[in-house]
Amino acid sequence: MNRQATLAPVSLGERLRATRDLTMALAEPLSDADATVQPMPDASPAKWHLAHTSWFFETFLLREFVPDYRLFDERWPFLFNSYYEGAGERLARDRRGMLSRPSLDEARAYRAHVDQALAAALPDLDDDARDLIELGINHEQQHQELFLTDILATFAANPLEPAYAAAPPTRTADPGRDVAWVEGRSGVVEIGTSEESFAFDCERPRHQVLLQPHAIADRFVTNGEWQQFIADGGYRTPGHWLSDGWAWVGREGITAPLYWGEDGTSFTLAGRQPLDPNAPVTHVSHYEADAFARWVGARLPTEAEWEDMAAGHDPRGGNQLDHAGAVMPRPGGDFFGDVWCWTGSAFLPHPGFRQPEGPVGEYNGKFMSGQMVVKGASCATPRGSSRPSVRSFFPPHARWQFTGVRLARDC
Amino acid sequence: MNRQATLAPVSLGERLRATRDLTMALAEPLSDADATVQPMPDASPAKWHLAHTSWFFETFLLREFVPDYRLFDERWPFLFNSYYEGAGERLARDRRGMLSRPSLDEARAYRAHVDQALAAALPDLDDDARDLIELGINHEQQHQELFLTDILATFAANPLEPAYAAAPPTRTADPGRDVAWVEGRSGVVEIGTSEESFAFDCERPRHQVLLQPHAIADRFVTNGEWQQFIADGGYRTPGHWLSDGWAWVGREGITAPLYWGEDGTSFTLAGRQPLDPNAPVTHVSHYEADAFARWVGARLPTEAEWEDMAAGHDPRGGNQLDHAGAVMPRPGGDFFGDVWCWTGSAFLPHPGFRQPEGPVGEYNGKFMSGQMVVKGASCATPRGSSRPSVRSFFPPHARWQFTGVRLARDC
Amino acid sequence: MNRQATLAPVSLGERLRATRDLTMALAEPLSDADATVQPMPDASPAKWHLAHTSWFFETFLLREFVPDYRLFDERWPFLFNSYYEGAGERLARDRRGMLSRPSLDEARAYRAHVDQALAAALPDLDDDARDLIELGINHEQQHQELFLTDILATFAANPLEPAYAAAPPTRTADPGRDVAWVEGRSGVVEIGTSEESFAFDCERPRHQVLLQPHAIADRFVTNGEWQQFIADGGYRTPGHWLSDGWAWVGREGITAPLYWGEDGTSFTLAGRQPLDPNAPVTHVSHYEADAFARWVGARLPTEAEWEDMAAGHDPRGGNQLDHAGAVMPRPGGDFFGDVWCWTGSAFLPHPGFRQPEGPVGEYNGKFMSGQMVVKGASCATPRGSSRPSVRSFFPPHARWQFTGVRLARDC
Amino acid sequence: MNRQATLAPVSLGERLRATRDLTMALAEPLSDADATVQPMPDASPAKWHLAHTSWFFETFLLREFVPDYRLFDERWPFLFNSYYEGAGERLARDRRGMLSRPSLDEARAYRAHVDQALAAALPDLDDDARDLIELGINHEQQHQELFLTDILATFAANPLEPAYAAAPPTRTADPGRDVAWVEGRSGVVEIGTSEESFAFDCERPRHQVLLQPHAIADRFVTNGEWQQFIADGGYRTPGHWLSDGWAWVGREGITAPLYWGEDGTSFTLAGRQPLDPNAPVTHVSHYEADAFARWVGARLPTEAEWEDMAAGHDPRGGNQLDHAGAVMPRPGGDFFGDVWCWTGSAFLPHPGFRQPEGPVGEYNGKFMSGQMVVKGASCATPRGSSRPSVRSFFPPHARWQFTGVRLARDC
Repeated sequence: MNRQATLAPVSLGERLRATRDLTMALAEPLSDADATVQPMPDASPAKWHLAHTSWFFETFLLREFVPDYRLFDERWPFLFNSYYEGAGERLARDRRGMLSRPSLDEARAYRAHVDQALAAALPDLDDDARDLIELGINHEQQHQELFLTDILATFAANPLEPAYAAAPPTRTADPGRDVAWVEGRSGVVEIGTSEESFAFDCERPRHQVLLQPHAIADRFVTNGEWQQFIADGGYRTPGHWLSDGWAWVGREGITAPLYWGEDGTSFTLAGRQPLDPNAPVTHVSHYEADAFARWVGARLPTEAEWEDMAAGHDPRGGNQLDHAGAVMPRPGGDFFGDVWCWTGSAFLPHPGFRQPEGPVGEYNGKFMSGQMVVKGASCATPRGSSRPSVRSFFPPHARWQFTGVRLARDC
Repeated sequence: MNRQATLAPVSLGERLRATRDLTMALAEPLSDADATVQPMPDASPAKWHLAHTSWFFETFLLREFVPDYRLFDERWPFLFNSYYEGAGERLARDRRGMLSRPSLDEARAYRAHVDQALAAALPDLDDDARDLIELGINHEQQHQELFLTDILATFAANPLEPAYAAAPPTRTADPGRDVAWVEGRSGVVEIGTSEESFAFDCERPRHQVLLQPHAIADRFVTNGEWQQFIADGGYRTPGHWLSDGWAWVGREGITAPLYWGEDGTSFTLAGRQPLDPNAPVTHVSHYEADAFARWVGARLPTEAEWEDMAAGHDPRGGNQLDHAGAVMPRPGGDFFGDVWCWTGSAFLPHPGFRQPEGPVGEYNGKFMSGQMVVKGASCATPRGSSRPSVRSFFPPHARWQFTGVRLARDC
Repeated sequence: MNRQATLAPVSLGERLRATRDLTMALAEPLSDADATVQPMPDASPAKWHLAHTSWFFETFLLREFVPDYRLFDERWPFLFNSYYEGAGERLARDRRGMLSRPSLDEARAYRAHVDQALAAALPDLDDDARDLIELGINHEQQHQELFLTDILATFAANPLEPAYAAAPPTRTADPGRDVAWVEGRSGVVEIGTSEESFAFDCERPRHQVLLQPHAIADRFVTNGEWQQFIADGGYRTPGHWLSDGWAWVGREGITAPLYWGEDGTSFTLAGRQPLDPNAPVTHVSHYEADAFARWVGARLPTEAEWEDMAAGHDPRGGNQLDHAGAVMPRPGGDFFGDVWCWTGSAFLPHPGFRQPEGPVGEYNGKFMSGQMVVKGASCATPRGSSRPSVRSFFPPHARWQFTGVRLARDC
Repeated sequence: MNRQATLAPVSLGERLRATRDLTMALAEPLSDADATVQPMPDASPAKWHLAHTSWFFETFLLREFVPDYRLFDERWPFLFNSYYEGAGERLARDRRGMLSRPSLDEARAYRAHVDQALAAALPDLDDDARDLIELGINHEQQHQELFLTDILATFAANPLEPAYAAAPPTRTADPGRDVAWVEGRSGVVEIGTSEESFAFDCERPRHQVLLQPHAIADRFVTNGEWQQFIADGGYRTPGHWLSDGWAWVGREGITAPLYWGEDGTSFTLAGRQPLDPNAPVTHVSHYEADAFARWVGARLPTEAEWEDMAAGHDPRGGNQLDHAGAVMPRPGGDFFGDVWCWTGSAFLPHPGFRQPEGPVGEYNGKFMSGQMVVKGASCATPRGSSRPSVRSFFPPHARWQFTGVRLARDC
């Protein structure tokens, strides 16, 4: 087992440094040009991730809590503010790929400048500021995952299909096995969190929900099963699909998961690789996940069903991100790791949700429209950042994340 | 009180005829040209509503259950199928305004043909067929409401601003009053329906939900209150808005509810009319409803909160559609009538939802994506078609329906 | 032969009345709904043509020269101004199909009002005003052609494919014949016009041009020849096409002339009809005309080549519009009539072109960008309105006019 | 005077090497990331220009004439074919910015590989092949200009506004002077070329044209004059504009030439610089050039008028590209250099134009639609590549080239 998993840094400063270091390691295989390309408006250049995560600390912590902090560059907040209306004007999201300057090395220098200021400030910070450091760490961990999915999208857009890194050394040969259905609890249970330890705003508060009798599959849907869905005309049968999904299939000419070739391969962070029939299918949209579930006569789990059952599983386990490299889903696995699990739940506020004060209040609350919840963690999720209560979310057509399918059914 | 409300037809045949007659009455003020125009893809021409509601009976009942039924015209199913993949090819939704032929009178003849066949067949129909008649009645009632909102959109698109009908004769002068907050039940309650009497598929099954402590306003948000929201910069303050909503405001240049003029008027079915400050605001999107609620520090009710409280109110009461004419929201009012109530709930399947077999199974289930639930009934909803469990739904930007706002808050 | 052709009205008033009457006759077969539909932004509703041609007389003549003229309706200039910036605000071009009101009968009443005022004013008008009457007549003749092509587009957009009128009674059976090449003049010749009799601004002034040695085909390209082009892969061979044309073919999925069915038929003003292999091909774009010409190793004539040769042909002859009915190209024919001839010339000002003063100056001059010249006259061109110097023009992708192909080549 | 201008390389091989070297020099100030960004579909990444110009030699010369030539990389022809249908499939034009790989250094290695092969092959090439070398040189010179205009567009898209190079050392302070009108020849003259020395296909053949009496301004329109146009409401007065131009102004919100700031500055290859009121205005579209000309009561010259008068001026003179650096228009100047001159002529074939055989035939002919001719040369045109007969062309809205205005008028 990996060192980070067993001997995770315990102090805030250590965790901060470990997180900042991992981001630097993720960027190591990239050229300045690689780090500049934006393959689509949803995906940001690697360079931008490096700088934006530093801007976050600079803006919400250093500028607010460190009186003599000097901006690295007066013009950069405009470049690296993502979507915080309260933090000023910003570069349009779909123009992030115009930033050949600053260079990747300048972005690294920005990181060093911010790291130094953070290290100097850390000993004297009060609890509010330390909470923002914690938020910044978790924010950066989210961007580490986006870094990997966005660089995958970047290389997939290049006909040369470059590999980001070598394939992971060991891929267990799992024989494949039938799904077993695990009955969940029913009645009133609690989800969300109210613990003092870190959680994003949208995970709070812990609250009661009512579960109907249900069961959840003990493993993910696999590539092999998805190939059967395709062979059975899954993408050509309107009856399986939500109306919006069917329109999307027609408009975009969708016939398989994203990155699948016509030759039994898939484009991955390790370049084009043969599909492993026993590995979890990934890079499918909510529309596809829902259609697959209808095809087999099942459904997607609700967020609450998933979260209640996942509470008995180890959020630090499974195939998650430990160090830089070409991550990819593997056969086997558990509730956490490999791929995110699409749910049938819309991303809406938990009962009693309160948006935090100030610009940081824009973190999640304003996105509670038009998105579906994914739960768990993927092979690109930094180990240690997962919790059952974590709520990630994407529009139902999004596919560039490591999103997969775990089925559920009524009992 | 209106005759229909007190002495509603009791037999299936009587109700069928009353419904079919009301549709004909709704079309009475229109010219052939009025009935042909399609002002936007979401809204259908009046003529199309007349024919489509007949196609529904023809397709799902007469063709299936009446052996010697002859189609009115072999080519019309292509024209008047709305979205049923299982019922064959169809005219693209955004091309319905191309149908100068058939004429309005031919559409009326189609109705007579279908009515005659239905009347002849009715005595011998089995229960399954009678259920489809019931569905057809309710389906047509939904289209009566769309008929009115779509003709409003049609006339609003004409710079001459024609009136559909004279303004309703009496508009009560309500002095306006403060909102009172009515505490709802909390704990496990039941919503949805499992009764034998008619309900749409998506209202089923009746099931338990858990309500958090909450209160709901005893009246709708009014035009006068909305004017305050505008005056306070509501449409210019990003902090009130969902991210998608703020983007929509900017992209579409939204500064007021749909149909509002700059001179304290609104375009209505009775032409341009002064805004009544005490009448419920209407023609607002979910984005606007949500922003308004944040502005006052409240929120929208959830579907379950609304439905549980509405169960104690008369679904046949209030300002609903009794006969053809220029309906509009009025001051005062109750849970049913005047305007639909935007909720904070996405339109997703009730636990245990089962899509019916056959093409009719496409009725609601396939739209359970990207839409928000509205509850209640509006001034354009045919009286008698409302139930607490009714779930109507629209995308969050839609405004051409009589949609309004009733606030809620945590307790 | 037709009366109009032989005994054309000679006085201005007689010609005005004959023109106004013909427009009324063209509208005779239409319902109010037919006259309301706008099938695409380029095509206007029939009702709009009726009213716009009256607006033209009202705006540029009656309001300017008749002191006590009273507008038919104060709000209508907004509705029926086409594109004259100098004549005030106007309804967006793509929203003309929203005008279910005024009704077709009200549009007719508008015409009567204007006609009456014109008749009363005519005896006392000075030369400037009489010139505007002349312009208004010619303007209305242009709209008569558009009326027919736009109603064809309207009925083509309806899956029921209504016929505007019965097919013309006699269609000569022409055996078809080989093309003969007629050598044109070369050297310095004159085109354009400076005569006192009516011409549009853009036809002036008469000026010298230099012609290279060339020949022009003595007949149009036929449907039969176009079928060979298709059979030879004409629409699938990029080498035949202009770059923009090839992109258009791909984007729009073009595989045949507009209105062609897959069964050797074409949709016409007389409904769906078998293609006559010997009739001139029509409803082809400039891109298609150019590609066809390259396929046969020829080219399109320049405007000057065409005009100089056409000067020897009768502009009142051939298959042109004499009275309301279902016009269509016929086998045989001459330089004028049947179909307009695409040229290889861009629509640019003649040397010495002067834009007239006032709003009427917007008539043609501002469209001298992005358009190609067509010459001659079609089966929908009112007989008597043709001149060799007439320059009509359309964007290179436009197909809804009766546009055809006459080949040319260098000598 | 510059060495290249006076002692231009005379042998084909020398000129090839000088051209290839200049391209390398142009790329020298760029990082790999700078060379990767594509700011808009019309503009290509610098890296792509480097590789495409090599692909041109590889494809049309080395693969055709050098039997044992080995492709640098089998996959690159797909990446670097621009638009030659006859040369196989290619990367979509608007995805050229996805090529972080190959790196700029790999693109340089490609150039070296091709250069070596060309040098080895040159001594034995026949005349056809040498003609293709000549074409390749001229092709690359065109791309040198695009290189500079595209990198300007790239840096302009970056809020940091990087400078490509230092401003040119000397900018003559010209006092500004009144326009003098130079009368051109009228009657039949000859334009185009039939000489044996190199010319692009579209410049051929030399042919007679007829010129009307006219005069051409002896200098370009200046920035100072353009500021007067703006101050006089030029961009707000529809009467000055072509209809398409006015729509473009409204749609794009155009209020000044491209790259102009609101503070009397302009973004240039040397970064943001104050506008020189006496320098030629540049980065204006044909629409703007035409509107300006109408504003002053003049017009644009025709291609033939310009070409005939330019025949008396030195095509190697003026402010053209001699070596890498931040070129920009300067006060003063002549028919060649500083800015291209928009004409009033559409880009159509010269009489007798013959498209060359083979894929190279796609060079210019297929673009003869929807574009306007510009004549002369700009500050970014490699000195020595200009001829009076050169016909460059752009759509009427294009502004990213160094395009300017020289007025003409009838006499």
